[in-house]
Amino acid sequence: MRERFEQQMEILHTELIELGALCEQAIGRTYEVLLEGNQRAAEEIIKKDQVVDAKEREIEDLCFRIILQQQPVARDLRQVSAALKMITDMERIGDQAADIADIVKVTSLGVPDASIRLKDMAKATASMVTKCIDAYVKQDLKLAREVIDFDDIVDDLFDEVKDEILQGMRKGITTDVQSLDYLMIAKYYERIGDHATNIAEWVVYSINGHHKGE
Amino acid sequence: MRERFEQQMEILHTELIELGALCEQAIGRTYEVLLEGNQRAAEEIIKKDQVVDAKEREIEDLCFRIILQQQPVARDLRQVSAALKMITDMERIGDQAADIADIVKVTSLGVPDASIRLKDMAKATASMVTKCIDAYVKQDLKLAREVIDFDDIVDDLFDEVKDEILQGMRKGITTDVQSLDYLMIAKYYERIGDHATNIAEWVVYSINGHHKGE
Repeated sequence: MRERFEQQMEILHTELIELGALCEQAIGRTYEVLLEGNQRAAEEIIKKDQVVDAKEREIEDLCFRIILQQQPVARDLRQVSAALKMITDMERIGDQAADIADIVKVTSLGVPDASIRLKDMAKATASMVTKCIDAYVKQDLKLAREVIDFDDIVDDLFDEVKDEILQGMRKGITTDVQSLDYLMIAKYYERIGDHATNIAEWVVYSINGHHKGE
Repeated sequence: MRERFEQQMEILHTELIELGALCEQAIGRTYEVLLEGNQRAAEEIIKKDQVVDAKEREIEDLCFRIILQQQPVARDLRQVSAALKMITDMERIGDQAADIADIVKVTSLGVPDASIRLKDMAKATASMVTKCIDAYVKQDLKLAREVIDFDDIVDDLFDEVKDEILQGMRKGITTDVQSLDYLMIAKYYERIGDHATNIAEWVVYSINGHHKGE
């Protein structure tokens, strides 16, 4: 029974790493698309989101199978229920990447000053996603807490981008329409950071049973 | 065993209705706060979000207890797992209401033209939340689908608000800083609509086993 549980958890970990990699790629590609204004690539990100959705459902089924077959308790149950929560956040990260691609698809944004900070946001959030999955698989509390702390940096980046958008608009570098679109994109990256933080908080819960909300 | 399952499901339904009511109130209050610029009321919405978070954790514990004790299968399991998913969306709705209150807390927004549409968005999304919880408890497929269809109306409202914000900015009715804040608020309402739609999709899944993603 225990051996079977551990086998199933191995599969769960592999699947989670794959879903994490899909999210990370999606975030990375949004920034390329943003720079190049490549509408076909934007379409591909939107299509790829369905793969993320399908993988989420697959992992969800696996989690319920483990719960029903193994009836895990204590830390084992926490690990499975944390996985169930984490995949919801991962699926949302895929959605946000598709939302960014959606904006790029209908507008041509060019490359204003704000894009440097947006690149930082894209990089920061992609790395948060990788780290929090890593923290889950290795059950590494320190790494999970690093991700949680990092969210403040992403929030600060958002405020900086917002300032840059205002300056760009005032100087006539970006139009008002472009400015609103940029702000939306920055907000999507900020949300991705929030989801990565949620995931990291579920990792903490899976390890020691404590969750931020308590 | 069956009787106990049904008792536990009764409790789950009552708890979900309570959580739904908290979300609905939070959305309704954001709009009052927005109109009056009442910073103390904004603080209260932010504080109340902790009640939503605590209730989510409580319902989650109940769902896991039901799964472990009753080992439900088929539609019974779908109902419990749908509840688990729905509460994540409800908790996020509470977060978005707090995010709106957060913006009102730091800026004084006044009452521009866009606020009429924002009021429509607040009303529409609050009603979507009530309806989708109702659909879950009554297992009413038709009502759930009504909520899903209604999301297009909220998306259209968002586009209208965005246009009004642009016009307001061009006419000098709202400053650029105010305009970006308004856009964020409209986006939060749009997200609340998305979460209500997610909940409705989980209701459909709990009834017939089909989910949008499949």
